[in-house]
Amino acid sequence: MKIKIGQEKLFNLLSRSQSVLERKSTRPILEHILLDAEDGFLKVCATDLRVSMEQKTPCDVEIKGAVSLNGRKIYEIVKEMPKEDISLEVKENSWVTISGSKTTFHLPGTLADEFPSIPDAPELLLKMNASIFVQMVSKTLFASSNDETRIYLCGVFFQEFKDSEGKDRIRLVATDGHRLSMVERDMEHTLSMFADGIIVPKKGVSELKSLLSDVSEDFEIACDEGKIFAKVGETLLSITLIDAAFPNYNQVLPEITGNGVIIPCDSFKNALRRVSILSDQETHSVVVEVEGNEMTMKSDNPSVGDARETIDVDYAGEGLKAAFNANYLMDILKVTEEDTIRLEVKDPLSPAIFIGREDDCEFLSVVMPMRID
Amino acid sequence: MKIKIGQEKLFNLLSRSQSVLERKSTRPILEHILLDAEDGFLKVCATDLRVSMEQKTPCDVEIKGAVSLNGRKIYEIVKEMPKEDISLEVKENSWVTISGSKTTFHLPGTLADEFPSIPDAPELLLKMNASIFVQMVSKTLFASSNDETRIYLCGVFFQEFKDSEGKDRIRLVATDGHRLSMVERDMEHTLSMFADGIIVPKKGVSELKSLLSDVSEDFEIACDEGKIFAKVGETLLSITLIDAAFPNYNQVLPEITGNGVIIPCDSFKNALRRVSILSDQETHSVVVEVEGNEMTMKSDNPSVGDARETIDVDYAGEGLKAAFNANYLMDILKVTEEDTIRLEVKDPLSPAIFIGREDDCEFLSVVMPMRID
Repeated sequence: MKIKIGQEKLFNLLSRSQSVLERKSTRPILEHILLDAEDGFLKVCATDLRVSMEQKTPCDVEIKGAVSLNGRKIYEIVKEMPKEDISLEVKENSWVTISGSKTTFHLPGTLADEFPSIPDAPELLLKMNASIFVQMVSKTLFASSNDETRIYLCGVFFQEFKDSEGKDRIRLVATDGHRLSMVERDMEHTLSMFADGIIVPKKGVSELKSLLSDVSEDFEIACDEGKIFAKVGETLLSITLIDAAFPNYNQVLPEITGNGVIIPCDSFKNALRRVSILSDQETHSVVVEVEGNEMTMKSDNPSVGDARETIDVDYAGEGLKAAFNANYLMDILKVTEEDTIRLEVKDPLSPAIFIGREDDCEFLSVVMPMRID
Repeated sequence: MKIKIGQEKLFNLLSRSQSVLERKSTRPILEHILLDAEDGFLKVCATDLRVSMEQKTPCDVEIKGAVSLNGRKIYEIVKEMPKEDISLEVKENSWVTISGSKTTFHLPGTLADEFPSIPDAPELLLKMNASIFVQMVSKTLFASSNDETRIYLCGVFFQEFKDSEGKDRIRLVATDGHRLSMVERDMEHTLSMFADGIIVPKKGVSELKSLLSDVSEDFEIACDEGKIFAKVGETLLSITLIDAAFPNYNQVLPEITGNGVIIPCDSFKNALRRVSILSDQETHSVVVEVEGNEMTMKSDNPSVGDARETIDVDYAGEGLKAAFNANYLMDILKVTEEDTIRLEVKDPLSPAIFIGREDDCEFLSVVMPMRID
């Protein structure tokens, strides 16, 4: 392999690969990236065996060929190189020479056939709007679990279905057992691929989100053989789905009455930030109390002190009182884009629902309350 | 104590105190700050018993008095308060109420007389230019040691003396045994206080540097009873000096010949940054070789790879070769403000000297080379 490529172009490819790479893997090859020079193109691949990314860019290929090398090191090197053309050449024993006009680096490479194979995209890819996808993913991802003993909770559940009027809808759900977040909207056209429901693992969802975050138009998507594929320009991301059944979340969803407390998000967020400074460092418990049009948040941490703040809300029901993990409430407020959110609480021990309506997208988040002593 | 004070004003005082406070001290009172309301003034004090800071600001004092409370907590609270007046009031059992228009906090306080006493400034303070002081301190502080078993190296040595023409000079020196940094310049007037030489501990020097960093005019300085004092406006910093003899650094200073390699700082810095990516992660060793007007830097890390870069320099002497810790060289290049620096090396095992001349300030840094295998 012998190629010449602009520093910025190569840096962008390497930079995007970094989050896919394994850190300190027991298999060093998973810390490698594959460089594969074909006719007029360089292909850069990274994989942790579950999430894989393949990127392509045109470049000046003198000798075709492929090699894999430490993905972190080549990234650090290219990052510090001046904005000029960089030459990459494979020498004896797979050593790779990386050179600019002044600097020369040698890195030990590995034969390309030791690198894991990267899944190919299926032939049929469907179009989907990237910014709507990112918006839906952002509103659910935070509620997924990190507990790998319950692997079916460590991702976001995607499902499409027909509503009572026969319209195609898509729904995303994530839960860690203490809270649940769900977002739902009409689909422009039937995709079918989510009809049975799939669970996309957390790391994969994050990669999808960052890949699509600066895409304003459509991207291409497909599901095939236990994988989800997303394609933007010359970048293909493939993610192995979690092979498990998503729990029946419908049975934990409280009934929505349509009433509840209308809370202005900004003052709720600011008050929570202040009051939670003195909440318990383990439980982050904050008591929320509503009486008429006033909502009071309180924290009490015997060794450190206590705090309270009252904000104006819009409420016509009976007095309410419940305790929540302040971090869970903040996570919800971070992703709401509307000015207000509606809170429905049946009683202090029943799950509370936060409901938002944004554009055509219905958002709800259920939080289990904490016991008030 | 009962006062009213603007959020921004109080936040600035608390923010500046944070770096003085002890973190996780065995004596919780050293994590506290003292609030002392006198006639129309609030005094905020923090100390770790070696470095103390006292700040004063006018405010609306309804009831005079003093209390100490957790310095980190009150900082976090005031930081999140809206930009409006904040009330502070001491209640029963030294509990303190902090309230804005909407939020109320209660923090447990401690009687003011349990707070350590803060040294008073001596009567006679002399004037010194703040930006020159900061410049001198920046060029030396990095070379001081963190090894508390050699406490006499854990600070910056200040000394004044008369040069051969009888002019008053001030010199700052710091060394960790592997490298030494020294800066020297004429004084506007005799201070006398540094005549015998003093060692200001590292944390104290950092505090001085950050206190003076945005002061463009003179500040006031004094030495008294084993302490150094610095006063800017209504802020007084006092630092207990290290009570030890500074080593005789003159005997390690190589003879300066006036010849050597003239190196452009920017290309030196950029090349070092690149080449050191592949230097040994423990020793950070980079080999520097000069032949004619070319200087080559090389690193070689058998498991990771090797790198080399050549830059143009100005040199008329014989070929040179020596190995250095790249981080030590970077530390020097970070504080030089001139376009070039001069390197003098007698042989690969003798200390190398980097010499700069900036304004009226002479700067030199000595680095022990590493053995080349």
